[in-house]
Amino acid sequence: MSLRAAIIAPTGYTGFYLIQLLLRHPLAKPTYLASAREELPAIAAEFPQLRGRCDLVCRPIDAKAMAREADVVFTCLPHAVALKHVPALLDAGLKVIDLSADYRLRDADLYERVYQHPHTDRAHLAEAVYGLPELFAKHVAGARLIANPGCYPTAAALAIAPLLSRSLVKPMGIIINAASGVTGAGRSPAPQYHFPELNESFAPYNPGMHRHQPEIEQTLTTVRGAPVQALLVPHLLPIDRGILETIYLEPQDEDVTEAELREAFVQAYEHEPFIRLRADLPNVKHVRDTNFCDLSVRLVGPAGGTGRRVIVFSAIDNMIKGASGQAIQNMNLMFGQDQTTGLL
Amino acid sequence: MSLRAAIIAPTGYTGFYLIQLLLRHPLAKPTYLASAREELPAIAAEFPQLRGRCDLVCRPIDAKAMAREADVVFTCLPHAVALKHVPALLDAGLKVIDLSADYRLRDADLYERVYQHPHTDRAHLAEAVYGLPELFAKHVAGARLIANPGCYPTAAALAIAPLLSRSLVKPMGIIINAASGVTGAGRSPAPQYHFPELNESFAPYNPGMHRHQPEIEQTLTTVRGAPVQALLVPHLLPIDRGILETIYLEPQDEDVTEAELREAFVQAYEHEPFIRLRADLPNVKHVRDTNFCDLSVRLVGPAGGTGRRVIVFSAIDNMIKGASGQAIQNMNLMFGQDQTTGLL
Amino acid sequence: MSLRAAIIAPTGYTGFYLIQLLLRHPLAKPTYLASAREELPAIAAEFPQLRGRCDLVCRPIDAKAMAREADVVFTCLPHAVALKHVPALLDAGLKVIDLSADYRLRDADLYERVYQHPHTDRAHLAEAVYGLPELFAKHVAGARLIANPGCYPTAAALAIAPLLSRSLVKPMGIIINAASGVTGAGRSPAPQYHFPELNESFAPYNPGMHRHQPEIEQTLTTVRGAPVQALLVPHLLPIDRGILETIYLEPQDEDVTEAELREAFVQAYEHEPFIRLRADLPNVKHVRDTNFCDLSVRLVGPAGGTGRRVIVFSAIDNMIKGASGQAIQNMNLMFGQDQTTGLL
Amino acid sequence: MSLRAAIIAPTGYTGFYLIQLLLRHPLAKPTYLASAREELPAIAAEFPQLRGRCDLVCRPIDAKAMAREADVVFTCLPHAVALKHVPALLDAGLKVIDLSADYRLRDADLYERVYQHPHTDRAHLAEAVYGLPELFAKHVAGARLIANPGCYPTAAALAIAPLLSRSLVKPMGIIINAASGVTGAGRSPAPQYHFPELNESFAPYNPGMHRHQPEIEQTLTTVRGAPVQALLVPHLLPIDRGILETIYLEPQDEDVTEAELREAFVQAYEHEPFIRLRADLPNVKHVRDTNFCDLSVRLVGPAGGTGRRVIVFSAIDNMIKGASGQAIQNMNLMFGQDQTTGLL
Repeated sequence: MSLRAAIIAPTGYTGFYLIQLLLRHPLAKPTYLASAREELPAIAAEFPQLRGRCDLVCRPIDAKAMAREADVVFTCLPHAVALKHVPALLDAGLKVIDLSADYRLRDADLYERVYQHPHTDRAHLAEAVYGLPELFAKHVAGARLIANPGCYPTAAALAIAPLLSRSLVKPMGIIINAASGVTGAGRSPAPQYHFPELNESFAPYNPGMHRHQPEIEQTLTTVRGAPVQALLVPHLLPIDRGILETIYLEPQDEDVTEAELREAFVQAYEHEPFIRLRADLPNVKHVRDTNFCDLSVRLVGPAGGTGRRVIVFSAIDNMIKGASGQAIQNMNLMFGQDQTTGLL
Repeated sequence: MSLRAAIIAPTGYTGFYLIQLLLRHPLAKPTYLASAREELPAIAAEFPQLRGRCDLVCRPIDAKAMAREADVVFTCLPHAVALKHVPALLDAGLKVIDLSADYRLRDADLYERVYQHPHTDRAHLAEAVYGLPELFAKHVAGARLIANPGCYPTAAALAIAPLLSRSLVKPMGIIINAASGVTGAGRSPAPQYHFPELNESFAPYNPGMHRHQPEIEQTLTTVRGAPVQALLVPHLLPIDRGILETIYLEPQDEDVTEAELREAFVQAYEHEPFIRLRADLPNVKHVRDTNFCDLSVRLVGPAGGTGRRVIVFSAIDNMIKGASGQAIQNMNLMFGQDQTTGLL
Repeated sequence: MSLRAAIIAPTGYTGFYLIQLLLRHPLAKPTYLASAREELPAIAAEFPQLRGRCDLVCRPIDAKAMAREADVVFTCLPHAVALKHVPALLDAGLKVIDLSADYRLRDADLYERVYQHPHTDRAHLAEAVYGLPELFAKHVAGARLIANPGCYPTAAALAIAPLLSRSLVKPMGIIINAASGVTGAGRSPAPQYHFPELNESFAPYNPGMHRHQPEIEQTLTTVRGAPVQALLVPHLLPIDRGILETIYLEPQDEDVTEAELREAFVQAYEHEPFIRLRADLPNVKHVRDTNFCDLSVRLVGPAGGTGRRVIVFSAIDNMIKGASGQAIQNMNLMFGQDQTTGLL
Repeated sequence: MSLRAAIIAPTGYTGFYLIQLLLRHPLAKPTYLASAREELPAIAAEFPQLRGRCDLVCRPIDAKAMAREADVVFTCLPHAVALKHVPALLDAGLKVIDLSADYRLRDADLYERVYQHPHTDRAHLAEAVYGLPELFAKHVAGARLIANPGCYPTAAALAIAPLLSRSLVKPMGIIINAASGVTGAGRSPAPQYHFPELNESFAPYNPGMHRHQPEIEQTLTTVRGAPVQALLVPHLLPIDRGILETIYLEPQDEDVTEAELREAFVQAYEHEPFIRLRADLPNVKHVRDTNFCDLSVRLVGPAGGTGRRVIVFSAIDNMIKGASGQAIQNMNLMFGQDQTTGLL
């Protein structure tokens, strides 16, 4: 089998990593790069890393032309732009993996409040599948439109779901202290990402107000089957890639042991090739350039005390498991392949 | 007035920053550097940064000799070593500012449990003053032995004390998510601090088990006048210097407003020259090379809900306000000077 | 004595470091910050590092108003803009230290070729003094207009002048391999300075075509009293601050020894407080935050062979000795103070 | 076909990257990891990055056992240790790719002077092939013992050989100004590689005295067929990986044009898949994680003048093309495969 993949808006970081992963994939290859730019660049001129490996030149965004040359399309467009293109892509017969936020929130009204923009494709929103394979692999396999999860939500949902689904932790008051590398902020220069401002710095941003917070709550609410409330406090790390989340939860039962908590992860993920449960503590460097999510769970504080906490540490590469790698994992499942193909 | 300062064990990072600050101080100067090394180095050979600025050569640790040439001595020895030297230094008539952990915990039994070492100087422990001037300036002024606070405890206590002393937050279940630059780990090479292992990394360490946790609880318990329980989860940042703490607390009263929380800080610190209350969010880069502690407070989550949280962000330079700068601030107070002398 | 200093365009990095140095200077203080921006910022809003230390708010660029409140003005304007303001500043009676390139090249025609812009102030160009105190201190003392040297030229001229003035090296074919931290590129965001592009990178730029090359040749030609030809090949380092130059020269006499070369530096700089001649090798980290230039000289290659080379290593902080620190050093000399005042 | 690969001393960085490349290689796989350590580690315990991807546990260094389970062995031992093991490995029938320096210098006496250690395997030294495929591919194909080139020599030889073999530059007085990431220094902690010492630093080391200098001269002398003299001045970059060399040469003919120089590279490398000739300038970031060598050539300085120079810029990933990637490229050729297999 040979999968032909198109990418819309490949000149950002998620596009770059998609191309890299597709070049290494034994069953797929990039065939069509589509850009809305007036001057259509050769991708290797945009990313000198790709010289000698990919000679594709960007072409206009044309759903029918793409459908002739591709089986699946990855949309790396900004939110509110993706939903303008997705309907035509689906109509042309393409399977679509959307890396924007446009099809992640199932409640269109919530989307409109969070993203401050009308949702003009509610029809397809209803059929979109949230592409977090460790939790929803079966739905992914049959989907023609995948909402590829956000980076923070991927690390958070994988860390919390096993505890929540087994009622081992309380569903309210969850604290997600998160830190991300700078590729997560995209490829456009801005004062706060100027090297001398960011190098040797560390700071929080948007505490409790990040758009990924409702996405996390939606996933956890699905897992639990009842409302879940979480607080996301992101920070920016002076590194290229990687997310580490330090997640604080309250145990549901004060007599729970760390071994029981750990067992919940073993059960949930024993057949999941991309989850690594660690006895020691995760580090973003250990997942860099991989599609793994490294997890570790600890129980701290005085037994029976108010301060007793479950801490889950979760590390991913924000560009791979948090974006392009997970998109490839979804592609593999949508086309009946082993989900690890090209990703180990 | 001219203050003569000695430093014991000046070849680590805290010694280096003490020397730098003393060279710039208008009223003090380093006069005696004392080392336990067999080969006694010129300090400028140890730190090429100091060439042309400091021509002192280390001499043996000799309390009486130091007392002839210095008014105050800074001890930069490891814990369990400092307490072997402090009695002789005090006996020789020197004022002592100890940067180790040996005189920080007032309860010697607690010290012995935490540091796994007998406390052999309980007599002086009783008179030692915990040198956090923003909270205990009056005691500092009259002290002859200062226990200079740890770096994490400095950032934490300054962030939490105003809220706790006004009963605006609950005293239990406090979460301190902390991240520090690598100078905090000292100057001795080790695999985890080897550049290619640490660069582009981010990871937690010792969650709930760091020795600074009981030190934080002691200070907050003093402030409140009743027990306080806090959880410290430190992380290591791939930068040289800086600590950022993201502190999660529960409001005591569910109707509290962010303005009231902020007012507590204004009241507590309006005359404190080294506290900067920020409307935006702190960044370790903004306090680098300064003795400032930048603070910001936020109230997040649904009003009345379980997840409502007070977040305080606290940033310091771990080597300045977290160690050597605070030691100079204490010296200024002990000798009747304005606490900002040489520090702005 | 109390020196009042104005700064025009203080919102870039050289302005920031000037303010920091002036705040620490025992005899000078910043009194007037002037900006061409429409919205005039408080400087502490622009640089949060300065909160609690400097409450100045920018005002319009008004030469007469500045002359009432200042004795000296530092112009941190871009080249081609500085020369529009300097005449009025001098006419108003201010001494001017210009950190742009506008008065560095004595040959106005050369300036116009290099900077591609007419030189409209040739009158003052004739009286401007090139402010490299180690070579031209006497002229600096009597100047009312200082052209503050470029960063690469400072490190290069200090490294080469002692050898050239003693005819120890050939005046042609000099190679200056240089590397600079990113603050040298200014504070405006651009794709090549976007953190994820620059972090973990290293690359050359403008080989043989950098505007500092003719400035270097001018200084060395002055020192030698006859033409000198040098090649500058700059590189960009993924660090904030620092320049290291590795300079390759051919010995004039094939029998020269390394000791003779070293002696030339000792003679040239024995009374220079900011030159540190090192037996080991310089490192940008050892000069960071200082006004020092660290130098080391080596003689390598087979005696008498074609490949015998003199190598001089030169390290400065591009923001201090390469810009703002040297400007303060010039100010000190212009006002009859010890040149090290406020800089050690 | 399926190639079975053993690695001796896989716990350093070159071992780590070999394993990573082998795991991704379609025709080869690691089968035997051999270590001289007393406690033999699971490789995934040593490198958490490999968890879930490689479950091999190190075994003793036993040539016969290895020969039963492997076709080729990569020796990642330190110099002077490798040559103790290679004879037995060859005798056991294994093909050997040695990543140490022990078989690189063809002149054993020169080896003994440079490495200060007796060469005890002169017999095999005579048959060893220097594994730089772009220059010596034919010899590689038939070899049973490969001396895998050093990192600096790889970047230098590829940059200089095309000009030298066409007599476009002079063979004497070649200057190689080089900068490397810290993985090149190995995985053992040392003060100079301690994060706070190295971060934000940049410095030269061993100018004119690096052991790779004679290796470079040997390769270039082979290419030219007559003596070549080069000077290597290495610097240490505060990054993980990458080498950039800025190489200064004198044109043989003063009328040469940049186009002619460039044409030499086109001719030399038009069929070489891992050489990318760039019109713009190389950057270590663009070759990271790849086996490419990016090259760019410039002609600078006044026509006919003493200072006219050819500059060649050469960038590689010191761990891939400079070590483990090149070793895989050699393995591919030794076993009759396309040299790019598993490397694009």
